[in-house]
Amino acid sequence: MMQPIISGSSRLRRTPYSNRVEEAGVKSYSVYNHMLLPTVFNSLEEDYFHLKRAVQVWDVSVERQIEVEGPDALKLLQMTTPRSLSKMEDDQCYYIPMVDAKGYMINDPVTVRLGRERYWVSIADSDAIYYLKGLAEGLKLNVRVFEPDINILSIQGPKSEILIERMFGKEILGIKFFKHKKIEFLGKEMIIARSGWSHQLCYEIYVDGSSYGEALWDELFKLGKDLDVKAGCPNLIERIESGLLSYGNDINSSHTPYEAGLGRFLSSGVSESCLAFESLNKKSNPDKMIKPIQISGKPIAPITYWVDIKNSSGDIVGQVSSAAWSPDFEANVAIGMVDKKFWDSNSNLFIDYSENDRREIFIQEKFWS
Amino acid sequence: MMQPIISGSSRLRRTPYSNRVEEAGVKSYSVYNHMLLPTVFNSLEEDYFHLKRAVQVWDVSVERQIEVEGPDALKLLQMTTPRSLSKMEDDQCYYIPMVDAKGYMINDPVTVRLGRERYWVSIADSDAIYYLKGLAEGLKLNVRVFEPDINILSIQGPKSEILIERMFGKEILGIKFFKHKKIEFLGKEMIIARSGWSHQLCYEIYVDGSSYGEALWDELFKLGKDLDVKAGCPNLIERIESGLLSYGNDINSSHTPYEAGLGRFLSSGVSESCLAFESLNKKSNPDKMIKPIQISGKPIAPITYWVDIKNSSGDIVGQVSSAAWSPDFEANVAIGMVDKKFWDSNSNLFIDYSENDRREIFIQEKFWS
Repeated sequence: MMQPIISGSSRLRRTPYSNRVEEAGVKSYSVYNHMLLPTVFNSLEEDYFHLKRAVQVWDVSVERQIEVEGPDALKLLQMTTPRSLSKMEDDQCYYIPMVDAKGYMINDPVTVRLGRERYWVSIADSDAIYYLKGLAEGLKLNVRVFEPDINILSIQGPKSEILIERMFGKEILGIKFFKHKKIEFLGKEMIIARSGWSHQLCYEIYVDGSSYGEALWDELFKLGKDLDVKAGCPNLIERIESGLLSYGNDINSSHTPYEAGLGRFLSSGVSESCLAFESLNKKSNPDKMIKPIQISGKPIAPITYWVDIKNSSGDIVGQVSSAAWSPDFEANVAIGMVDKKFWDSNSNLFIDYSENDRREIFIQEKFWS
Repeated sequence: MMQPIISGSSRLRRTPYSNRVEEAGVKSYSVYNHMLLPTVFNSLEEDYFHLKRAVQVWDVSVERQIEVEGPDALKLLQMTTPRSLSKMEDDQCYYIPMVDAKGYMINDPVTVRLGRERYWVSIADSDAIYYLKGLAEGLKLNVRVFEPDINILSIQGPKSEILIERMFGKEILGIKFFKHKKIEFLGKEMIIARSGWSHQLCYEIYVDGSSYGEALWDELFKLGKDLDVKAGCPNLIERIESGLLSYGNDINSSHTPYEAGLGRFLSSGVSESCLAFESLNKKSNPDKMIKPIQISGKPIAPITYWVDIKNSSGDIVGQVSSAAWSPDFEANVAIGMVDKKFWDSNSNLFIDYSENDRREIFIQEKFWS
């Protein structure tokens, strides 16, 4: 695979932290929600080891926010997700599959409840704002849907706790997983949540106002110097180990939440107020599903494109969508969509990793961490 | 500006032509509608000169199609655009500003009418499909909205006519601007339109089925060998000269069609069936507008980020959004949004092109070509 350069363009927005990210030596970018997302600083493996032992600051501004505000805010959001939001409280974050009326996934955002009539939807890589706007404007709902100037900075790794305590005080450490609290920075009230795109201890600061970006970044690096704080980014190896799906890579608008393996968020049934209520109730027992997959043999280079999974007769029975060598688990770890008949771990499946390099694969019971 | 590498990812889709584009030596990519868009082959200037004298084949698969099909297709489309579609005929293409209910731009696609109840919307860089789906599903319209497997190949330049004649026969040459005709390739019916993202003579083939991509590419290169056919791509210099706006660069979701300088498409008034009918009627006399701008002094490097325009008192009165040196017009040509009070060409405006390099700028009456 060649690695072409990326052309500068205001269409691919820089973030409030891009200058700092570049000073920190970012080696490659992706584009996500029309914005630059760092993907490697030192190397995939060095970034991975550092993430797991120290503390990193991640520019995840690409997790754009959609603010949904007004008397019909909850109604609008519930129309787009099968997960019931009826018990959500003002300090909670919910991971929600977002679907169209047929139950196909539009996005898989984290929704933050700020009040009974005010939410932020922290989106994966698709302009989900237009679906919300289309519904709201077509039905003349009493709600405002817009993108506020929020740019998330994530604090990641085992020592994130120490850094957060130094920065915002001991009381912040008490936040439970997927809850948020108020903090103040330079006199500006913001929120911090116990959430983030890894399986490490992590926090997300919803930095409210681009102009605060560099000052906050600098303060975190000053306070974390002795903790070996470094610039980091979502790490391919770590996210596969922990089974974090990437919308657009592992799942897309042709998949239902059940196929995406997100049925566990719908254990109390599909919300009756979701437009896809009827469609999804018919699709709760899918013929294929996202699975953890181990690829046999020696370490592979990261797989970032779809590779067919075949059975012993050579039929295509699924695809590997993300894969990498895991140093900690000493295995090639992968995410893929597999036909139901082959979910058994002894299914005799394989992929052609490259010409003349056929690898056996094994469907796993669960992700690695 | 640094030029970082772009990380491989299935989230940033390759096109049916990506292998050929890379064999042809693409030097840099952009990402557009979650897909790879070539931006330079030899150099911006070499590509430019070749485009204007020979013939190029462009992979513009990133112009994704939204198919809108069913009894309510026209109704749905008209809700999203102020340009009247009532007189559109089955062989026509219309450039349409697409807006939300407040009149702000969601996209600026070319819409292709295939029949009374069937349209393709060839989109710029935003997931406009979700706005159409949101409206259709909220209002339960009788229409299907989906992305068909269409990947446009554009034939560009003065000799495109010769190549098109060799490929599809003399009768295709008769197509008028923004009209389309049926062609056949390997037994498959497709359409070709007299349209394209340059001011050169150009055609767009709506290649229907990814599997035909490489065969068509190869055939065009075989037939065009003596015409010096080369792989090309939308060219920054040429598009500025001809005033082709880039959604996300020059205009975005904070602008109305009037601010974007697209009022000429609304000369017969805003369609009453457009959701933004009332809002836009109040906004037809905007305080700022897209203008052609000449930047004085010696040749500049391409500007691909927003640069403030200031008046003699130092107040910010607009932004340059795209700029480059034009070899043919021997001038620095630019596109920018300028406050109404300064549309006069003698307004004493300037930009700080770089530190210690202040440049006078001049608002032009019209674009260069």
